[in-house]
Amino acid sequence: MPIRNRITYMLGVEYPIVQAPMGWIARAQLASAVSNAGGMGIIETSSGQLDEIKGEIAKMRDLTAKPFGVNIAQAFVRDPGIANFVIDQGVKFVTTSAGDPTKYCGPLKAAGLTVFHVVPTLKAALKAIEAGVDGLVVEGGEGGGFKNPQPVMTMVLLPLVAEKVNVPIIAAGGITCGRTMAAAFALGAEGVQMGTRMVSAAESPVHMNWKQAIIDADETDTLFLNQFGKPALRALRTRRTEKLERDVLQNDYAGPPPMAAFGNALDLYFGGDMEASIALSGQVAGRIDSVKPVAEIIAETVREFEETVRAMGKRYG
Amino acid sequence: MPIRNRITYMLGVEYPIVQAPMGWIARAQLASAVSNAGGMGIIETSSGQLDEIKGEIAKMRDLTAKPFGVNIAQAFVRDPGIANFVIDQGVKFVTTSAGDPTKYCGPLKAAGLTVFHVVPTLKAALKAIEAGVDGLVVEGGEGGGFKNPQPVMTMVLLPLVAEKVNVPIIAAGGITCGRTMAAAFALGAEGVQMGTRMVSAAESPVHMNWKQAIIDADETDTLFLNQFGKPALRALRTRRTEKLERDVLQNDYAGPPPMAAFGNALDLYFGGDMEASIALSGQVAGRIDSVKPVAEIIAETVREFEETVRAMGKRYG
Repeated sequence: MPIRNRITYMLGVEYPIVQAPMGWIARAQLASAVSNAGGMGIIETSSGQLDEIKGEIAKMRDLTAKPFGVNIAQAFVRDPGIANFVIDQGVKFVTTSAGDPTKYCGPLKAAGLTVFHVVPTLKAALKAIEAGVDGLVVEGGEGGGFKNPQPVMTMVLLPLVAEKVNVPIIAAGGITCGRTMAAAFALGAEGVQMGTRMVSAAESPVHMNWKQAIIDADETDTLFLNQFGKPALRALRTRRTEKLERDVLQNDYAGPPPMAAFGNALDLYFGGDMEASIALSGQVAGRIDSVKPVAEIIAETVREFEETVRAMGKRYG
Repeated sequence: MPIRNRITYMLGVEYPIVQAPMGWIARAQLASAVSNAGGMGIIETSSGQLDEIKGEIAKMRDLTAKPFGVNIAQAFVRDPGIANFVIDQGVKFVTTSAGDPTKYCGPLKAAGLTVFHVVPTLKAALKAIEAGVDGLVVEGGEGGGFKNPQPVMTMVLLPLVAEKVNVPIIAAGGITCGRTMAAAFALGAEGVQMGTRMVSAAESPVHMNWKQAIIDADETDTLFLNQFGKPALRALRTRRTEKLERDVLQNDYAGPPPMAAFGNALDLYFGGDMEASIALSGQVAGRIDSVKPVAEIIAETVREFEETVRAMGKRYG
């Protein structure tokens, strides 16, 4: 049975489960699997490869008849034409992130798109509301990827924001199953976003070494890096990231800036050399123990979500 | 209506809401208010002042006829007689923390006490289960106080542990209201523990300046300190803790070890000088905006928990 709420209505999806826009990874192969399974697949732009992305969006139209979205990662794509680029592609749902929400919200909404902004604090949430966004992606600091240098965790951030805004919220950070989806809904969300879980999925294009590293990771095997630089980020523990954590924090680091490692990202992402760059990952890596097709991940999540809600209602309702 | 589950049964309380054992603070005035309101008040031992604590336990018997517990903070009270001390006081519920769970579990259980161990990781949880504990307090890294140097957040840690153990779980870290209680239950807990919320309560003995600092704090106003020392800790942002964070991490710190600040703890705790020491606090400080009596906190939490569970069941069940 489809889930019905403001998120599924606004996004036109069966299940309010959104795939995070991981750079280079969130392309047609993965995103179409998510959309076809009833969730919301998202195409990334943070790689900055707009020509390739145009091709990926075209592929999406071949691979799925269902809705999908695009993320505008403002800090990474500084091209002022990005909003028109997305509008021209005929996309109906956009998440904006890593930048000022007032910048693109107006033109995107004027063109009829639904716009959600990604926020890591209450202050950012209120600013996005003022900018006129249709909804928020509220992102807790336990999640992977680029992060606010003062990470606030989902258990605190989500209800804080939910109590102060009226727009629908997609929860990100720590979400990987139906139990966490139910928890996020208890905290005020109407949708969830999964990043690391989707990186580990069968349809994810990353090298098996990365998927295996997620499977092997314990819950303590992510590091919060570059906290006094910008941007901060959460990534898997490797020899490289352990050294970065200690050296940078202890001011004993003479190498290139940590972000320079992303120059070699593709050697890690698709070449499988886990020490070539930084494997962004959330703490949920500690809860993922196998590679599964996206359709199975989404079906299991929805089933466990409904079971959890029913069991709690029976016990405590 | 009382809540019925394994926690309320084992602890003999109406509501599965436990007050955290904050050093110097978790004494009879606060703990009796929690017990009288139907929760589980806990007397601390981490101050190391065992003579005073004996007096506090005696006061508890005057102030409440309801169950209460004692925490054994193993890293702080190294006296091997601590287990006998607790047994001799006639206490029926003990949480052990900050140490090897095999150390006191046997004698405490042999004396008929119910023993829960506080754990910050899955590995620690499995070790505690092996030691024979009756239950676990699963403590996420967004919480205040002394912490595992690799903090794992409640949204990740709690379901990870809950899926692997059969004993009942009390969730700590990020819990401050009925929504967070419902989220914790969705993640597999049957009880919750509140620390910062109880520090802010009317019956908490701390100086009003500390309560006011909690009220004033945003969700980004805690710092995770001393991460490469031991113990790591989460505390309110003050001039002192901001300097500690940067200096210690950047190896540019020539002062006494951060823990030395606790030599002046009472000047902050009860004297109200917020720069005299370190005000331990969880990220939920950003969600607390008034001082309320414990009975009101507990009643509101239970009401909101039940409303949240019912609303979710109605909508998604």
